[in-house]
Amino acid sequence: MSEKTISKAVIKRLPRYYRYLGELRLQGVKRISSGELSDQMQVTASQIRQDLNNFGGFGQQGYGYNVSFLFDEIGKILGVDTRKNIIVMGAGNMGQALTKYTNFRSYGFDIIGIFDVDPNLVGRQVNGIYIQELRDVKMFVESHHVDIAVLAVPKEAANTTAEHLVELGIKAFWNFAYTDLQLGPDVVVENVHLLDSLLSLSYGIKNHSNQNPVL
Amino acid sequence: MSEKTISKAVIKRLPRYYRYLGELRLQGVKRISSGELSDQMQVTASQIRQDLNNFGGFGQQGYGYNVSFLFDEIGKILGVDTRKNIIVMGAGNMGQALTKYTNFRSYGFDIIGIFDVDPNLVGRQVNGIYIQELRDVKMFVESHHVDIAVLAVPKEAANTTAEHLVELGIKAFWNFAYTDLQLGPDVVVENVHLLDSLLSLSYGIKNHSNQNPVL
Repeated sequence: MSEKTISKAVIKRLPRYYRYLGELRLQGVKRISSGELSDQMQVTASQIRQDLNNFGGFGQQGYGYNVSFLFDEIGKILGVDTRKNIIVMGAGNMGQALTKYTNFRSYGFDIIGIFDVDPNLVGRQVNGIYIQELRDVKMFVESHHVDIAVLAVPKEAANTTAEHLVELGIKAFWNFAYTDLQLGPDVVVENVHLLDSLLSLSYGIKNHSNQNPVL
Repeated sequence: MSEKTISKAVIKRLPRYYRYLGELRLQGVKRISSGELSDQMQVTASQIRQDLNNFGGFGQQGYGYNVSFLFDEIGKILGVDTRKNIIVMGAGNMGQALTKYTNFRSYGFDIIGIFDVDPNLVGRQVNGIYIQELRDVKMFVESHHVDIAVLAVPKEAANTTAEHLVELGIKAFWNFAYTDLQLGPDVVVENVHLLDSLLSLSYGIKNHSNQNPVL
């Protein structure tokens, strides 16, 4: 399997395939044709075949895809087979909501620490995890294996916080702060810019009558 | 201004332009060249010029862009100049976190209602708004103007909840449930699939050494 040649566009679609295959597996579906998957995902069957062909011969003419096998293989490509430790920076609304989101655990993600500067928050528990002082993050990172830092701090604090964590060796950030991070090329950042998303929806409302839905 | 001809790709980038221009305006910057904006946004200057040319002659050779004017114009295109009322379906962690997120208000979005089925939550206040019973949403929607429904319900309940709201006349959904909605073509949906995003990050961690950062 030559993962290196997979295009960015395909990779962006992988989590969605993973989600649909996971649902099918839960429903007890053993195999599915690209046509059936196409109906459910509202993607053309040929796109599905092309995308999944990147990962070798999962599909067989006249048989379709083995749901469970394909689910596992895509899971491996996404790294779900390796558990990852997460710390959450910022115990405000979003930081606490994410820490309480137990669903992540079943996909291999464990939140092991949460940090804030607010003395009113430090010492409280969120989902069984004590909120620690921000200044203690260095000690924590040095004594725990941390794969991902969630940035749920105000945008003004986001870059400084991230740079500090990069110095401590953290190379992956899930960024909820409403700003883009300026970090080095060896750092991976995935942004969740909620307001960008809400503004896209707002644009959609205004311009929907002009659009020709393609389906 | 012929908005109808703007490509989807440009539209996807608009909220980010809006964000950067808003920052510049806050910093008191009056005008900016495409080159300077390019450095900050890490997009090529020619892309910026092409994108912004869609909205008429905002940039002038040797002068650059009028920050405040361009910010306002993009804001109008995104619909920020028309206030929008939002209801939040689901008063769990995510629903409550979003309801507490006061930043949306300054961009024209007002959360005016929050609903849940859980009797332990109904009657409590979130950010000054009483959590109401889900079955009261019909009366609420009939007596209030509602532009957007946030779906922060479990995925199993997402489609039924959305369909019910579509019947009540709501045509825009900000979907946080971990499932895609099957609604009609006259309905606008913007998804925030957190696990998809986290899995993309996970892929990035695993494959980062293979990637050539393009800058």
